[in-house]
Amino acid sequence: MSAPELRAVTFLTDFGYSDEYAGVCRLVIAGIDPRVRVIDISHGIPPGDVRRGALALAAAVRFSQPAVHLAVVDPGVGTSRRAVVLTCGDHHLVGPDNGLLTLAATELGGTDAAFDVTSTPVRVGDSDTFHGRDVFSPVAAELARGAAPGEIGDAVGFRELVPLDLPEPTINPQQVDCHVLYVDQYGNAILNIHGEVLDGTFLADSSEIWFQTSAQQMTVPLGRTFGDVEPGDPVLFTDSTGYLAIAVNRGSAASRFGLGPDNQARITPVPSAR
Amino acid sequence: MSAPELRAVTFLTDFGYSDEYAGVCRLVIAGIDPRVRVIDISHGIPPGDVRRGALALAAAVRFSQPAVHLAVVDPGVGTSRRAVVLTCGDHHLVGPDNGLLTLAATELGGTDAAFDVTSTPVRVGDSDTFHGRDVFSPVAAELARGAAPGEIGDAVGFRELVPLDLPEPTINPQQVDCHVLYVDQYGNAILNIHGEVLDGTFLADSSEIWFQTSAQQMTVPLGRTFGDVEPGDPVLFTDSTGYLAIAVNRGSAASRFGLGPDNQARITPVPSAR
Amino acid sequence: MSAPELRAVTFLTDFGYSDEYAGVCRLVIAGIDPRVRVIDISHGIPPGDVRRGALALAAAVRFSQPAVHLAVVDPGVGTSRRAVVLTCGDHHLVGPDNGLLTLAATELGGTDAAFDVTSTPVRVGDSDTFHGRDVFSPVAAELARGAAPGEIGDAVGFRELVPLDLPEPTINPQQVDCHVLYVDQYGNAILNIHGEVLDGTFLADSSEIWFQTSAQQMTVPLGRTFGDVEPGDPVLFTDSTGYLAIAVNRGSAASRFGLGPDNQARITPVPSAR
Repeated sequence: MSAPELRAVTFLTDFGYSDEYAGVCRLVIAGIDPRVRVIDISHGIPPGDVRRGALALAAAVRFSQPAVHLAVVDPGVGTSRRAVVLTCGDHHLVGPDNGLLTLAATELGGTDAAFDVTSTPVRVGDSDTFHGRDVFSPVAAELARGAAPGEIGDAVGFRELVPLDLPEPTINPQQVDCHVLYVDQYGNAILNIHGEVLDGTFLADSSEIWFQTSAQQMTVPLGRTFGDVEPGDPVLFTDSTGYLAIAVNRGSAASRFGLGPDNQARITPVPSAR
Repeated sequence: MSAPELRAVTFLTDFGYSDEYAGVCRLVIAGIDPRVRVIDISHGIPPGDVRRGALALAAAVRFSQPAVHLAVVDPGVGTSRRAVVLTCGDHHLVGPDNGLLTLAATELGGTDAAFDVTSTPVRVGDSDTFHGRDVFSPVAAELARGAAPGEIGDAVGFRELVPLDLPEPTINPQQVDCHVLYVDQYGNAILNIHGEVLDGTFLADSSEIWFQTSAQQMTVPLGRTFGDVEPGDPVLFTDSTGYLAIAVNRGSAASRFGLGPDNQARITPVPSAR
Repeated sequence: MSAPELRAVTFLTDFGYSDEYAGVCRLVIAGIDPRVRVIDISHGIPPGDVRRGALALAAAVRFSQPAVHLAVVDPGVGTSRRAVVLTCGDHHLVGPDNGLLTLAATELGGTDAAFDVTSTPVRVGDSDTFHGRDVFSPVAAELARGAAPGEIGDAVGFRELVPLDLPEPTINPQQVDCHVLYVDQYGNAILNIHGEVLDGTFLADSSEIWFQTSAQQMTVPLGRTFGDVEPGDPVLFTDSTGYLAIAVNRGSAASRFGLGPDNQARITPVPSAR
């Protein structure tokens, strides 16, 4: 069953759903090999938001069989930024060299080899603004049908790859300073703290915490899921990707507390418990 | 041709299109059996709106060959609500036991057997907030590849299933009191009245009616389609799912008349005709 | 490989992503022949916007192998407007006779034959408002599985087809008057000027132009791609479909300059250069 699996291209972009952009890429892929199956991850990444794209891609590839992962969030299209393929075990990541692929590569065990496909011979079309169609889709389709990356690109050192700009939290035993990474469909605010880094902090054995942003401060209980609190109440939990997140049961934490990407937050013991 | 048909999973959620949530589920399914075909119904159900999900699912399964229908609108994820499979003839419905599946089951001729898959052995991942990925997707994939529901869950009495909370209209010969069930993409307001229940009321042989909400009242002609009235004018018609609906030709009835889910409305003969 | 290719139905509508409408059509197609592959182009065409649908369809079919192209933007559904199939070489276009298919037909080399399928014997369902489900989907599926259009519709003269209403630019050596055709996902405003028609005008050898709308006027540099200008600055470029477009690097030209569909614009040499 590994052969049909390798014919799959997973597909993540910021193309949105209003235009024909994702559809044209599907047609380019089907035109190269109709047996290649395209599995959509999302095309709703906010325009140009490389970080959100990188996080979504990493969360997806973790659950993928070996496949070609085509990802396009590419505000620098047509400039000197490179188009690359990263090979990670039996997976290939295809996209712009702007940090978009780096978290997924780590998730897949690290990059074994990298290739520059900016001037790939399999290019279609001649646009300077739609390399999703003209460069990345044909490269992904050729890989999915069995081409070796070295046949359609030039090997490059993967230490030269552009890193992702991702804020780091500051974690002390009695205080965690963090950022909102993104807000999801339900208004949950995902924080840049992996649940696993909290051993040795007060959070490891708290049942509630003090949550402060520039606009708000409040006590928030820790829970496993939304329904651990009453409808309308907030809860801090470890979300399905392993990050801490703040939610409101049957509501939107983002709307309720005015939380958005890059907002800073501080988590400390509840004042009365100090 | 029935064999390939049974390998299909139809897929309806409130996951939206911004995040990777629907995509990760597709990858889980493909990882279990790459031959299973996923057919998207919609992922744009309003977050947590079980009723809208139930109505959309019922409208879709009516046109489906035997398949596994995976539906996830699950505000109670991680609480004591059960994960279930309902078997209806050659169809399986997979989702949370919160009323989401009930209209579809009726549409498919009723539930023949029900299974609790909350603690299914085919679970993947360990989240408390994303059973779409960890419970429902693997269950759907296993059923689509041919597993019997009893192999991956425990039989339960289907009289114990949680019913859907759906408002009932009050229908009298000269007055119909109803609710807006939902507003669709075009701004059409779908009412909780099946066209077929109107025999014996004034509506059966009217050419126009008097439509009253708490905010508005107006004469609305009955028609078959939008173009039966001038652009900008309202029309009451039987929509493609069999419910009465109010639309504005080349416009939005919801915007024009301030109609939204759960709004109450009264339909009577036009005053001048009384 | 042409046989599996011809089993594909590409799919473009204004059904949106909130309702089950596109999903039900996929189920109707799968019910007729599960081997038919559906390739989504977009379902996010603005409701009733035939022109945007026509432009998106034309941009997509250009990159398609022979296939059946199902397109539904159909504000006149249920009225006397016809349902048609246009045959263009090895491609079939299926949709309402309201101009939606005309640009795609031209892109595919012109219409070889046209068929009226309004009263097709392969119809399913009986709605007056959802011919996407009841007429167009079964017609597309039957064509994709190999039916001849004459078996499921009646030949009509293709000079009787409804043309698309598309504004024409006025192009003079020192002045181009044009319209915004649409605004895409990134806020790029696409103009009704093909790059190729500019030979003989000042634009052919300018490095910047003077751009005037009823609300704004400004100097805009010509470039190949967004990154040719600083973040936040505008650029006029030839977009991936061949039309001139105005963008703002890492921003939205539509928001920045208040540009929307049908806005008029005038392009002249920059005043200081006159």
